[in-house]
Amino acid sequence: MRIYGDKRSGNCYKLELLLSLLGKSCEWVDVDILKGETRTSAFLEKSPNGKIPILELDDGRVLSESNAIMHYLASNTPLLPSTPYTYAQVLQWQFFEQYSHEPYIAVARYINLYLGLPDDKRAEFESKQAGGYRALEVMEKQLKQTPFLIGDTLSLADISLFAYTHVAHEGGFDLSAYPAIRNWIGLVKEQQGFVAMQ
Amino acid sequence: MRIYGDKRSGNCYKLELLLSLLGKSCEWVDVDILKGETRTSAFLEKSPNGKIPILELDDGRVLSESNAIMHYLASNTPLLPSTPYTYAQVLQWQFFEQYSHEPYIAVARYINLYLGLPDDKRAEFESKQAGGYRALEVMEKQLKQTPFLIGDTLSLADISLFAYTHVAHEGGFDLSAYPAIRNWIGLVKEQQGFVAMQ
Repeated sequence: MRIYGDKRSGNCYKLELLLSLLGKSCEWVDVDILKGETRTSAFLEKSPNGKIPILELDDGRVLSESNAIMHYLASNTPLLPSTPYTYAQVLQWQFFEQYSHEPYIAVARYINLYLGLPDDKRAEFESKQAGGYRALEVMEKQLKQTPFLIGDTLSLADISLFAYTHVAHEGGFDLSAYPAIRNWIGLVKEQQGFVAMQ
Repeated sequence: MRIYGDKRSGNCYKLELLLSLLGKSCEWVDVDILKGETRTSAFLEKSPNGKIPILELDDGRVLSESNAIMHYLASNTPLLPSTPYTYAQVLQWQFFEQYSHEPYIAVARYINLYLGLPDDKRAEFESKQAGGYRALEVMEKQLKQTPFLIGDTLSLADISLFAYTHVAHEGGFDLSAYPAIRNWIGLVKEQQGFVAMQ
């Protein structure tokens, strides 16, 4: 089993953090998106959507989409709650992450950190700020009520949202007005097996 | 149990189609996003992200995110495969739908169908075409290999992708170059319990 990814990418870091929290390891193959390594025919043969991370099983089967891979890696572990409602809540937060959080916070970070905020990307960078803060507001509202996103214990929902939230400042987002998020970031970092993003 | 939604929205239609295929029904509360009905304090109290659909249980608990609600409604049914890999494949397609398909095809359709393609939205509408066709290419590649997205039988993955793909023409997308997608649309429509979008 091997992961193809870039550890600076939050979507890839989700898998690194999850595996570390589970006390597991996995072969890692570095893929550099800036060098076009997700657009080669060899990579597209594995994963037609051309995005990282992907997980390749020993028999050659492949999974893409960070949050889907997390469910495969975490099946039958305490990081996935077992009642239909709490399980659906984990998914709710993961779909929120991919639709309402990542396209703003991760993309702003990508433009700033990977691309160096070039002039021709500044308007796009700035267009991401309002949506990013809306997502942070939604998280803050929940984390004022419960220490983790779906209650008292860590779940995949927290790992998915932690990935880009804890580096949101690299996308220009100021977390000083979000005390519950900052407290939650501290709680995630205290988990046994926590590993920092590279 | 009641759903708050707009049946013209593909994200809401996913739930209507799923329930019909399962032979179930549910109270439906119409919500008009164009009238701002997802931004009222009463709605935001139920669902802070202010999006439809949401599912409200009889005890008042709420779920948001169409694909997460689908998992709640379909738990322990044949529409959700049970092995960790095939289950993760369903999620892979649903996350693909929300990140790489819906933001292009559904948004183009929204601008065209809901807003009437006003001049000040034409550039945004056109910017969605390339990404929409990329998503259709990924689906076509899979559907050339298997009749449904994860194999020989219908799953939640098909329902999630069917919602906006079968009305992609309303977003300006021409499916004539995608015979496998057109065949799959026909197969979904033949399923017992199928209900058309309003």
